[in-house]
Amino acid sequence: MDRRDFLKASTLSTAAGVLAMHGLKPAHAQAGETYYMVSFLSGIDYWKDCYRGMQDAAAFLGVEAIYTGTPDYDITSEVRVLEETIAQQPAGIALTVINPEALVAPINSAIEGGIPLVAFDADSPLSKRYSFLGTGNYAAGVMAARYLGPLIGSGKAAVLTVPSQGNLLERTNGFINTLKAEFPDVEVGDDLIIDNENNTTVSATKLSALLQAEPDIKGVFSTNAPAAVGAAQAIREAGMLSDIQHIGFDYDEGTLDLIDRGELGATLAQGTWQMGFWGMMFLYMVKHGNIKSVSDWQAAGISPLPPNVDTGVVVINQSNSQYWRAS
Amino acid sequence: MDRRDFLKASTLSTAAGVLAMHGLKPAHAQAGETYYMVSFLSGIDYWKDCYRGMQDAAAFLGVEAIYTGTPDYDITSEVRVLEETIAQQPAGIALTVINPEALVAPINSAIEGGIPLVAFDADSPLSKRYSFLGTGNYAAGVMAARYLGPLIGSGKAAVLTVPSQGNLLERTNGFINTLKAEFPDVEVGDDLIIDNENNTTVSATKLSALLQAEPDIKGVFSTNAPAAVGAAQAIREAGMLSDIQHIGFDYDEGTLDLIDRGELGATLAQGTWQMGFWGMMFLYMVKHGNIKSVSDWQAAGISPLPPNVDTGVVVINQSNSQYWRAS
Repeated sequence: MDRRDFLKASTLSTAAGVLAMHGLKPAHAQAGETYYMVSFLSGIDYWKDCYRGMQDAAAFLGVEAIYTGTPDYDITSEVRVLEETIAQQPAGIALTVINPEALVAPINSAIEGGIPLVAFDADSPLSKRYSFLGTGNYAAGVMAARYLGPLIGSGKAAVLTVPSQGNLLERTNGFINTLKAEFPDVEVGDDLIIDNENNTTVSATKLSALLQAEPDIKGVFSTNAPAAVGAAQAIREAGMLSDIQHIGFDYDEGTLDLIDRGELGATLAQGTWQMGFWGMMFLYMVKHGNIKSVSDWQAAGISPLPPNVDTGVVVINQSNSQYWRAS
Repeated sequence: MDRRDFLKASTLSTAAGVLAMHGLKPAHAQAGETYYMVSFLSGIDYWKDCYRGMQDAAAFLGVEAIYTGTPDYDITSEVRVLEETIAQQPAGIALTVINPEALVAPINSAIEGGIPLVAFDADSPLSKRYSFLGTGNYAAGVMAARYLGPLIGSGKAAVLTVPSQGNLLERTNGFINTLKAEFPDVEVGDDLIIDNENNTTVSATKLSALLQAEPDIKGVFSTNAPAAVGAAQAIREAGMLSDIQHIGFDYDEGTLDLIDRGELGATLAQGTWQMGFWGMMFLYMVKHGNIKSVSDWQAAGISPLPPNVDTGVVVINQSNSQYWRAS
């Protein structure tokens, strides 16, 4: 069951309209208040939507948002970019964390220097970041089970995952526990869990072998993007596209093509826009907010921000895939 | 370890200052846009802080927030108040849910009628509410363990809880799992878990008996308010105030008195202000927001809001209790 809320009945207005309603000017009007988004692998599409969310919130608030990061998948490089950003004395930083431990020192130096910082998508939980906004991976697995369960009805379900990777393990646990609790006719066990090694070819090869060994498989949950592409290939090559329900994770134009061609039933889109939008709102409220009910919230050691935010996932299938195409 | 973030270095401004910065007028200036907070047991102090948070956000946004609810602990009464509120066609509703199932129908009728609704403090997870903002109970148990663990060092820890009550079970699990993982010298087992039946006298009586049977107890986690008061009494009467570390849950003036007299080491304050503040911000963004990165977010079935928000807990002890006194 997909409980995503449809907003058709709510009254919408454009960001420009909201700004006008408040007498706000666009971003450049709040001279001097600049917030940064800092990423690693800064060129990948995944972050674009996070930054769009941050820009939307910045426009609403009348401040400026700047995107930066390191193009590399390299801890030292991200630490250096973060330190350079801190040196700019920005109004706040939204940071995605390549490595939880390595980023603790620069994160804490930002906080202690009076620069609000929140983590998004990937966390550094033992740092002093005010908040983490990211996908609740267990909840995402629950969503996958509630989507696949009714479609499978009865039979076996396989999972492609990386058991040693925490976020994928949580997705797997949410999926399995929910099937057991809510869809007892769907069987899933250790022998149906594939370690796909974050690799498309491994996903295809191992699932092909499993489909031969276990002809009762009626559903597949691919917990990461390489799994979805590889598993779709294995299912197609086995001639079982109409026999097996398959839900993946994340999306790009290629994934949307698979969905539209009927080679992948569905995928789960992470709430990337939500991470950026609410991350920006959070930073602004640390900078400007007030907690009237506590006489001195700084001295009392409290934060105005929720420490952990599940930004959610949305099921994309043929019914709504067109809305996710790059416009 | 308490990882609450201290905000001493951030630049603060009053809500009035923020409003002026944006050229915003106080609440009454946004004629016609009124948001409601709906509660049960509407007279208790606990909700006051939630409403203060909602008022602070409403002032920031230039809209009006109204508090309503039923004074009773009665499902039918809360359903009636919610239906009456919906009939006012408000701009949005922040609702705390006395009963998850009984509130599904009126919640869904609000959403389907175009009225944004979020749940706070207590959820109706199978309803169409846009978001739930409340204490992450497992995370709160983790916090209790990280506070008590270093204080206990080695020895046994007891837990006063109601095993059949889901939120208290999560607090207990977070506490026990964290002790086992991070403080292996602190022993906690099934024989050290007390069912306090949500009752102060039961808490005192059962803990008194346990302290006689288990003289090695060095720490107590009281997962609800009646437990904290009863356990503090039992520990005092056993003459073990200096031997046993004790952390409770929730606070009122009486709890703060216990802390200041040294009869309760600490308690965990829930993020009530945060529930109200961010609940109000969320409602406003459903009413006025936009997701630029998805071509038609309503049709795509997505929400601009995070579906689940952990509003956090803060440790109150003698070092910061003065800030929590009613001013």
